[in-house]
Amino acid sequence: MRRRRSIRKYKTKLVPTKEILSVLEAGRLAPSGANQQPWMYVLVTDSQLQHEIRREAETVEKTFHCRAPHSLKNWVKKQGITPQKSFLTEAPALIVVAGRTEAPYWLESTWMSIAYIVLEAASRGFGTLTYTPSDTRFLNKLLKIPKDHQPVAIIPVGYPAENPSPETRPRKGLETLVHRNLYRSTLL
Amino acid sequence: MRRRRSIRKYKTKLVPTKEILSVLEAGRLAPSGANQQPWMYVLVTDSQLQHEIRREAETVEKTFHCRAPHSLKNWVKKQGITPQKSFLTEAPALIVVAGRTEAPYWLESTWMSIAYIVLEAASRGFGTLTYTPSDTRFLNKLLKIPKDHQPVAIIPVGYPAENPSPETRPRKGLETLVHRNLYRSTLL
Repeated sequence: MRRRRSIRKYKTKLVPTKEILSVLEAGRLAPSGANQQPWMYVLVTDSQLQHEIRREAETVEKTFHCRAPHSLKNWVKKQGITPQKSFLTEAPALIVVAGRTEAPYWLESTWMSIAYIVLEAASRGFGTLTYTPSDTRFLNKLLKIPKDHQPVAIIPVGYPAENPSPETRPRKGLETLVHRNLYRSTLL
Repeated sequence: MRRRRSIRKYKTKLVPTKEILSVLEAGRLAPSGANQQPWMYVLVTDSQLQHEIRREAETVEKTFHCRAPHSLKNWVKKQGITPQKSFLTEAPALIVVAGRTEAPYWLESTWMSIAYIVLEAASRGFGTLTYTPSDTRFLNKLLKIPKDHQPVAIIPVGYPAENPSPETRPRKGLETLVHRNLYRSTLL
């Protein structure tokens, strides 16, 4: 938890399928609303499919970017976020996570499953990123995911080709995040 | 991940504040949309406040239960879910988690933080449960949480007074959850 950073650059080296399945096994174990386990995973390793996903993702991001208000555009620019999603083709595998929208607390549950996945990947030395396209319906089409499941994230998985230090990520202090009994009361 | 189960019965024994802060420290480390860290935690250990939270929670659950369609009522009954939330007063501490709704992907990020919290608690031997009341606005009032933050879960924390086996929780098999490249394609 402490050392994990999101990874945007990946080596081309393949990740053994067995390793990826162990990572997904962790996602399977997450708790869920009424134990409905509303998640499903599409493991994409077909290079052509990865290119199609990247093209569609970049298209929706460009549309989103154009329509965004000026203030948001500036903010996004400042964060170094661009519509270019090179990690979608550079990572040797993508995990597309979708949730069954009829299940109670499906979105909350599915993101707990995603947390389990990124932690298990980190503990095995793999880099990951949780990327949610502004509009995910193209994933239903491309991957033939039924309409009752909504894709919520694409997680590239691979050997990291960058090594960002945990220290360089700005973090709020625990003392600003925790309140005791009432909001704005002293912590201890 | 494999051994953790949700705990509904707690010992009265107090959990040291230092331990709970270490658990929240894990929550603080979760990744978030645009690194906005939109979560905040109210640690409730005041017994009177816990009783008020329980009373209000049971009221909203009863209302929800009465208004629910017949089919849902039957299903809820089958699951053994009742409007009675005794763990809210029996656990020695509650962590109320809220998210700042203006942040991008605030709900997704906040639930990743919750996943980190329940895993860290489990690794320290504490029981937890993620409980989301049908309506959480009473928590804003009781705990004076500002309106721009939406409470999304109450997590009781304590020493478990029950020991459910991981094997007794029905789980979908990995082979039904994972698809290779396209939905409904064979896994390997």
